[in-house]
Amino acid sequence: MTTNTSTVTTVDNGVNVTALLGAREALQKAPEAAQFKWRASCEWLKGTHSRSTIGNFFGLGAEQSRNKTFTVEADHPQVFAAEDNAPTPVELVLSGLASCLTAGVAAVAQRRGIQLHSVKASLEADMDIQGILGIDDDVRNGFGTIRVHFDIRADASEDDIKALVAQSQKRSAVFDIITNPTNVFVTVN
Amino acid sequence: MTTNTSTVTTVDNGVNVTALLGAREALQKAPEAAQFKWRASCEWLKGTHSRSTIGNFFGLGAEQSRNKTFTVEADHPQVFAAEDNAPTPVELVLSGLASCLTAGVAAVAQRRGIQLHSVKASLEADMDIQGILGIDDDVRNGFGTIRVHFDIRADASEDDIKALVAQSQKRSAVFDIITNPTNVFVTVN
Repeated sequence: MTTNTSTVTTVDNGVNVTALLGAREALQKAPEAAQFKWRASCEWLKGTHSRSTIGNFFGLGAEQSRNKTFTVEADHPQVFAAEDNAPTPVELVLSGLASCLTAGVAAVAQRRGIQLHSVKASLEADMDIQGILGIDDDVRNGFGTIRVHFDIRADASEDDIKALVAQSQKRSAVFDIITNPTNVFVTVN
Repeated sequence: MTTNTSTVTTVDNGVNVTALLGAREALQKAPEAAQFKWRASCEWLKGTHSRSTIGNFFGLGAEQSRNKTFTVEADHPQVFAAEDNAPTPVELVLSGLASCLTAGVAAVAQRRGIQLHSVKASLEADMDIQGILGIDDDVRNGFGTIRVHFDIRADASEDDIKALVAQSQKRSAVFDIITNPTNVFVTVN
């Protein structure tokens, strides 16, 4: 463990692992502080074009205000007779999966004392649009299979790099959201 | 049906329903053209900060090139000892769900001859971060429950507005992705 600690201090992937380990220790003693609520609101603009706004969230037992809000637009592409003003909603989900796994790779690498040089993820997801068009009720609306490929340059063996990705996948929120069912309750007005 | 068709032409939500119905008819005769592949690539920037790029996709039997690429950044917030440069990956997923349901509401309203005035979706998702922190293996990494609330102003009865949202939900790709499991295969280097 001592050797490992000294290795950790020599690499810098920009992740504050000390703080994260401290948070883990604190939350083990106060699990109610681990209950988070993430939020987004979405405004219809025109056609299939919309703008989501992301700001405050709840966590560590309190409202967490950011000093800014983020906006994320979405639209449908021209082959769906739309204006292609922004990525499609399903491409946003893919970027959520990509960024979640990538952040995890950086955090795990920092924890394991592995200096990263570059991380690139390439994602492709199959979709049979007979589902969303209502042509065939046996076809699901969402993705068939998603393939994620990581190309990682780091000061580590091939096996150690594979283990980084495996650990990131094991702890990824978005990987879990996509691979397992979640209840969604929708209300109106 | 004749009455319905004439009603449709008097409303304008910016959705080309005629083209969509034509596409549905064409794809019924050529289901292989309905096989789409959506893509995103993601580049690690620093720490938990990354940038996804969204461009071409495959569909209608051919590569579909856009005349632009979209970028979507993600990061972790300051309470996770990160820089909060962009929304979190899970907030991107929420915005994907919001925008998918919102686009569906606009399309279904156009099809049903309902003029929309405003559509706003508010989403909140519970997450127990004991999962992603590895404190408790019985806690999932992703969301507990997601609540979506729509506030819609339209020239329609309350029941008709509720039916719009129900139909959008029934045909939403992202709603399906989140509420049902999808296989994700991850490879490295």
